[in-house]
Amino acid sequence: MIGSGFMGSAHSQGWRVAPRFFDLPRSPEMAVLVGRDAGRAEAAASKWGWAETSTDWRSTVERDDVDIIDIVTPGDSHAEIAIAALRAGKHVLCEKPLANTVAEAEAMADAAEQAAANGVVAMVGFTYRRVPAATFARDLVAAGRLGAIRQIRAAYRQDWLADSDGPMTWRLDKERAGSGALGDIGAHAIDLAEFITGLRLERVAGTLETIVSERPLLGEGIGLSGTASTERGQVTVDDVALFQGRFTAPDGGGFAPLGSFEATRFATGRKNALTIEISGETGAIAFDLERLNELQFFDATVPATEQGFRTIFVTEPEHPYLAPWWPAGHMLGYEHGFSHQVVDLIDAIAGTGEASPSFGDGLHVQRVLDAVGRSSNADGVWTPVHPHDPHEHQHAYDAH
Amino acid sequence: MIGSGFMGSAHSQGWRVAPRFFDLPRSPEMAVLVGRDAGRAEAAASKWGWAETSTDWRSTVERDDVDIIDIVTPGDSHAEIAIAALRAGKHVLCEKPLANTVAEAEAMADAAEQAAANGVVAMVGFTYRRVPAATFARDLVAAGRLGAIRQIRAAYRQDWLADSDGPMTWRLDKERAGSGALGDIGAHAIDLAEFITGLRLERVAGTLETIVSERPLLGEGIGLSGTASTERGQVTVDDVALFQGRFTAPDGGGFAPLGSFEATRFATGRKNALTIEISGETGAIAFDLERLNELQFFDATVPATEQGFRTIFVTEPEHPYLAPWWPAGHMLGYEHGFSHQVVDLIDAIAGTGEASPSFGDGLHVQRVLDAVGRSSNADGVWTPVHPHDPHEHQHAYDAH
Amino acid sequence: MIGSGFMGSAHSQGWRVAPRFFDLPRSPEMAVLVGRDAGRAEAAASKWGWAETSTDWRSTVERDDVDIIDIVTPGDSHAEIAIAALRAGKHVLCEKPLANTVAEAEAMADAAEQAAANGVVAMVGFTYRRVPAATFARDLVAAGRLGAIRQIRAAYRQDWLADSDGPMTWRLDKERAGSGALGDIGAHAIDLAEFITGLRLERVAGTLETIVSERPLLGEGIGLSGTASTERGQVTVDDVALFQGRFTAPDGGGFAPLGSFEATRFATGRKNALTIEISGETGAIAFDLERLNELQFFDATVPATEQGFRTIFVTEPEHPYLAPWWPAGHMLGYEHGFSHQVVDLIDAIAGTGEASPSFGDGLHVQRVLDAVGRSSNADGVWTPVHPHDPHEHQHAYDAH
Amino acid sequence: MIGSGFMGSAHSQGWRVAPRFFDLPRSPEMAVLVGRDAGRAEAAASKWGWAETSTDWRSTVERDDVDIIDIVTPGDSHAEIAIAALRAGKHVLCEKPLANTVAEAEAMADAAEQAAANGVVAMVGFTYRRVPAATFARDLVAAGRLGAIRQIRAAYRQDWLADSDGPMTWRLDKERAGSGALGDIGAHAIDLAEFITGLRLERVAGTLETIVSERPLLGEGIGLSGTASTERGQVTVDDVALFQGRFTAPDGGGFAPLGSFEATRFATGRKNALTIEISGETGAIAFDLERLNELQFFDATVPATEQGFRTIFVTEPEHPYLAPWWPAGHMLGYEHGFSHQVVDLIDAIAGTGEASPSFGDGLHVQRVLDAVGRSSNADGVWTPVHPHDPHEHQHAYDAH
Repeated sequence: MIGSGFMGSAHSQGWRVAPRFFDLPRSPEMAVLVGRDAGRAEAAASKWGWAETSTDWRSTVERDDVDIIDIVTPGDSHAEIAIAALRAGKHVLCEKPLANTVAEAEAMADAAEQAAANGVVAMVGFTYRRVPAATFARDLVAAGRLGAIRQIRAAYRQDWLADSDGPMTWRLDKERAGSGALGDIGAHAIDLAEFITGLRLERVAGTLETIVSERPLLGEGIGLSGTASTERGQVTVDDVALFQGRFTAPDGGGFAPLGSFEATRFATGRKNALTIEISGETGAIAFDLERLNELQFFDATVPATEQGFRTIFVTEPEHPYLAPWWPAGHMLGYEHGFSHQVVDLIDAIAGTGEASPSFGDGLHVQRVLDAVGRSSNADGVWTPVHPHDPHEHQHAYDAH
Repeated sequence: MIGSGFMGSAHSQGWRVAPRFFDLPRSPEMAVLVGRDAGRAEAAASKWGWAETSTDWRSTVERDDVDIIDIVTPGDSHAEIAIAALRAGKHVLCEKPLANTVAEAEAMADAAEQAAANGVVAMVGFTYRRVPAATFARDLVAAGRLGAIRQIRAAYRQDWLADSDGPMTWRLDKERAGSGALGDIGAHAIDLAEFITGLRLERVAGTLETIVSERPLLGEGIGLSGTASTERGQVTVDDVALFQGRFTAPDGGGFAPLGSFEATRFATGRKNALTIEISGETGAIAFDLERLNELQFFDATVPATEQGFRTIFVTEPEHPYLAPWWPAGHMLGYEHGFSHQVVDLIDAIAGTGEASPSFGDGLHVQRVLDAVGRSSNADGVWTPVHPHDPHEHQHAYDAH
Repeated sequence: MIGSGFMGSAHSQGWRVAPRFFDLPRSPEMAVLVGRDAGRAEAAASKWGWAETSTDWRSTVERDDVDIIDIVTPGDSHAEIAIAALRAGKHVLCEKPLANTVAEAEAMADAAEQAAANGVVAMVGFTYRRVPAATFARDLVAAGRLGAIRQIRAAYRQDWLADSDGPMTWRLDKERAGSGALGDIGAHAIDLAEFITGLRLERVAGTLETIVSERPLLGEGIGLSGTASTERGQVTVDDVALFQGRFTAPDGGGFAPLGSFEATRFATGRKNALTIEISGETGAIAFDLERLNELQFFDATVPATEQGFRTIFVTEPEHPYLAPWWPAGHMLGYEHGFSHQVVDLIDAIAGTGEASPSFGDGLHVQRVLDAVGRSSNADGVWTPVHPHDPHEHQHAYDAH
Repeated sequence: MIGSGFMGSAHSQGWRVAPRFFDLPRSPEMAVLVGRDAGRAEAAASKWGWAETSTDWRSTVERDDVDIIDIVTPGDSHAEIAIAALRAGKHVLCEKPLANTVAEAEAMADAAEQAAANGVVAMVGFTYRRVPAATFARDLVAAGRLGAIRQIRAAYRQDWLADSDGPMTWRLDKERAGSGALGDIGAHAIDLAEFITGLRLERVAGTLETIVSERPLLGEGIGLSGTASTERGQVTVDDVALFQGRFTAPDGGGFAPLGSFEATRFATGRKNALTIEISGETGAIAFDLERLNELQFFDATVPATEQGFRTIFVTEPEHPYLAPWWPAGHMLGYEHGFSHQVVDLIDAIAGTGEASPSFGDGLHVQRVLDAVGRSSNADGVWTPVHPHDPHEHQHAYDAH
């Protein structure tokens, strides 16, 4: 595993726990934790249970006794590491977003495609697909229980920036964070909407906004004079994004569904509310990550007097991923998705499952993010996800 | 009262019931019901308790013994009737939307302004303002309990068009209905958002869409050959509308809040879901017309461990409009707003209250609707509510 | 109508509104309001729209031009008035509880039975049966959708006594009120449980309790010295009741369902929470009067992965009582039950419906209340609703 | 760890995960898994990560290199193992219920008291105390936020026996299971109610019932003739329990709170609904294990218009146990309580925390269960938890 932040903890928990509940075709071992700072890597490895540490990801990805590279670093290093690992024949699990730019993501998707020819697996970490209720929602849609889909509403709402005097952090600095609310949490809303429906966004029209553009600098960049309280840093990423989307029309024609999306860190009272509601001709589903064990399902084919959104408690052994856990009615939490990710990755490596979401899926999400930015810059006009102009890709990327 | 459809029933209930619970400064009498068809007007008057009927609204608005004209006809006749009534010195209550075009609405607002000089009251029927929970939400915002407002999400979702084979009706014919989902239900979402926040939309960017563009003709326009089942009519209004909005910045500067809006008749499982969520720096509120006695309120100023959306059961005697009704905990229903409308209208006439929403408010909503249409026609680009180009008002209106 | 308190207002609203929405086989007129105090009766009649007033119920029930007597007085006068009215051949609608004692209720049920032979209708006012969601719950049970019923939980929770320093009122004085939480609100829970399931309680085991036994006297019984704040009155009724119940076994044998009941005025935060949950072998329902337009229904016959409590929004035209009101999705409120009661009463009088709940039903509820009291006095032991000992009926009642 | 069923998996997860997130004063090692069957113990140890296995608990509890004995066997062996372990100076964590009889529990509590003198810790596994929302509820009550407590309603509802044709299992056989719904899940409701309020039940009045008394024998005890489908086994434990309880009065006098309790496996649609609602003079809380990250809190001290149950999302770092886990808004699941249990146990062993719930607490719960049984046998009469009659303890227990 390369990296050791909050995601490192979550991924470690996945590697640690998955084999204790699921019968895996391969037995993963937690071999090496790579971090920039030797001391911190050591501490994290000890805490999380990794056998060794290293500060050199390049040599690590070349090691013969390492089969899988799990990348949990900030987005700007994803491309370089992932491409190197894939070229070295290692399976790669890469945290989302796949990269910070479309060009990087394209290079990664290319590398993954080449590696696939050699049986090498590449997967991107949109773990919310592995929340059982979300997976089950996908199953219901795939089984035709919603009929023709008309509208999709997806939002990821948090509120940790609601306080204007909340401090400036590196996450609000484009240089270091790469992206703001759209790239960080909006990407999940996009992927989840596409995963559940099996559709892809083709055009978007949206707005990126920075609601609070200056925040107090706390501890960083403070002068000797102790005038810290009056110094403020510039927020250079979006902290709210709103956009509409047009999905692909169903095969054989029909209405191309409309989507509306929101990513925000100003939704006071919403802590981690990744919500999605999908309206189809014969049914609807609604999901909220703040109640992740539940799925709302409306079946419009039962008699009118008996219709209603039903709260399915997605904890039955027949539900996706549930059988190896606890008896029905016992809830799973946030981190279980990381175990499910390990299960799916190992299955893909063993050839008993598919690597999904692929780097191609991750590239597509990256293109949607990019298109929203282009639309926002163009006063909100509808903008294609795949720009026709080849010159659009100005920032070519070269991963040596 | 001019008109006798579903709204006629609701308004009649308001006139009938309000004086039985509220102490009004004037005692309204249900004098004349005007309808096109004498027989149907007679039947409705008898059912609803109007003393007389007429088929001639022009003579009725001139009657000396009539003080108030309540207009519940389709939108295309609002302007003519309302302007005539106001010129005759009658107080006017006009159902929403104020008119079918901006030009009509401007003429009506002008007439109302002139009439106001003579103490004549004109009010437009956005009754959802009078749902106690909505009024109380406005009070919370006005008291500063939400702090600076950042985002507003308003939607009006129904599902009665979800079935593609649902029949064609006059409401889906632009000639007769004037507008589709945006004008019919989206107007409520706009008004409610502006009412609760006290802000006005300045710019919008949106999309109007007709999801199902042909529907079976049932009973109307059917030929002798009995081939009804294969004939289909053209849906000429929008059946879904999505738009973003930019509100006025607060006095003294600060962030101009962002809104996202939806009006749809394809939200499977949502029957009458006028929902609104407002995020402020120190609080948030959420409301759903399908649970109209409840208001969700999040107070971000209490300790973090004790924060949470609280479900206020808006049935206390101290809540707006509630005291004359039932003991705390006893719910009100849809039609109570019509009684509250009568109360407010009579108060305005007696000079003990203000006529709100005014025809000016109604005109503003009309302009927003128009701007959404213009944005949709311009590929979704951000569009001002008040167009700067005077030639924009091509369709001048003259109501003599 | 005899009486003019809060229930007088609700009943008047029923009489006023029902004919405006429903096609009734008879046209009721609001003829006479009878009250003890001429001035207050006059004011109420004027407010509520009764044509005349009287202070003499005895002469009123004899009037030839009066067909229906609606009794909304306190419970201690129900028996005398109802029996006199029935003997005079008048149809009677009597507020619940039917009476203050079993003996009175027996006499009333006898009188109703005799009157029925002459086509005279007697009905007791458990209006919550007429909340459409409750009626629809009954329909689901009757259609076998729950299978064999095992458990019933019914509670009526309010909180207006939660404050220990809340004032003493006549409702807390047994002499004047007759009963406390059990008789006043618990009676509704009992009737609703029996109505929905079609079962009757046969045995009960319970506890009556007075949580706050002394309360400040405000305004009543205050001496000249102005020491009001220190004087306290004795609460002589129960303010909380808990009991278990055993229902009749189904025809043909099987498990006799178990019930658990609560009536309380100390349920902090619950304003008017009449809740019921019924568990059957193949389904379950849950209802809460604080969301009276909704019914929770769990269908255990669908595949396990798709099971869940569904929130049926009971506002479809096909739902009980709904068709004449508003379009689907438009909520009803507390008072609509009183209109439905008028509809059912008029139907019973016209012979197009049944008088339900009958005085016999009311008597049965009275017996249950009595049995709970006897159980509480006997240290909570299981106690039959129909005592075998004929001497149990000590307080014979004679209504001349 | 002694035992290897479903609870073994949950406890193992606790031991495995707790040290990865919490800074513990001691580092636990997963040493020996003891099971009856060597092969199954081996498999479980390998799956769950225990270093060795054994089939002899007696020798294991004597091992010098073992410090803690974690007992997850069926209830009938708890006393023997726990007492032996305590006498050997080992710290003991024992699954609930503490024992199958009061006599056993008394012996265990005695042994724990003696061992405590030597610094040996004994704890019983009511893990639901360690759900952060439940712990936080306790904190709110302890801080006086509810004022004087009046009523407590606790229920544990499941539905896995709802189907009458569900198979007979050992859990329904008193010989093997020891207890039914009351002992298995009702015990949790009792402990949670007492934990949150800090009160103890003194008297109870209740009913035990077996709703379905015969069930098909599947696979076990089936004869050669293959007539399995017609053979049925006898259910010898209660499958539903209802009781009322009287808690200790607060210090200094005042109302002794009333409780109502339910434990059932017939609550169709309720999968794991351990619910509790506590009404106090100035506030109330409500909790449901099916939404274990949420706590409902009603604060009756804010203005009446702003009161309402608020849904506290108990995921803030300031909430109990939360800081080491994920950022605010990220949910915990069922098994996290087992990690918290390990944390508390290690803290108690290290002297930095208290062993709670103690074996004394477990004994008390056992006495409540016993008293409910005695009340049920005595036709539901109120029955003291501590019987005055010394002969009540007929079944003396001797743990050699």
